[in-house]
Amino acid sequence: MSPDNSIFVGSKPFMNYVTGVIMQFTTKNADEVIVKARGKFISRAVDVVEVATKRFLSGQIRLKGICIDSEEFENKEGKDVRVSTIELTLEKIP
Amino acid sequence: MSPDNSIFVGSKPFMNYVTGVIMQFTTKNADEVIVKARGKFISRAVDVVEVATKRFLSGQIRLKGICIDSEEFENKEGKDVRVSTIELTLEKIP
Repeated sequence: MSPDNSIFVGSKPFMNYVTGVIMQFTTKNADEVIVKARGKFISRAVDVVEVATKRFLSGQIRLKGICIDSEEFENKEGKDVRVSTIELTLEKIP
Repeated sequence: MSPDNSIFVGSKPFMNYVTGVIMQFTTKNADEVIVKARGKFISRAVDVVEVATKRFLSGQIRLKGICIDSEEFENKEGKDVRVSTIELTLEKIP
């Protein structure tokens, strides 16, 4: 799984990410695409996956699996903080 | 699966939901608890599950599965809108 097949969802316009997913499956002919997000962008990553699978590539791709996890790091004030992460794996329907 | 075992995550203080999950597994002795959310609260539901499984009930409960879906409805202006939903199922480790 090359890192090129990952779409990291953040604060750019919503459709950028949906288009990113579509491009991976169409122009770049990927078999799998992983949509990743952290913190508050997790909701957005779910929206991207729902819109891509149900509206744009309906019948062509499907959700293969979802993983959630946490990352711990030290913030600028030296305090330990925890942030949730999600990875939604999409695959081409054979 | 009784609907009593569901925790619907919204805008209340974060720890209310974590406490809700803990209470279901401890006081109410549930075998499974489903954490549900819609739209922007999806990120929060993931946080609740991560904190409950990794900090408070570590080694006692685990994530059994995650489902995402969409709900379509008509808003006040009569326009069709779509909202993503998530259901995270937690189970007691035997």
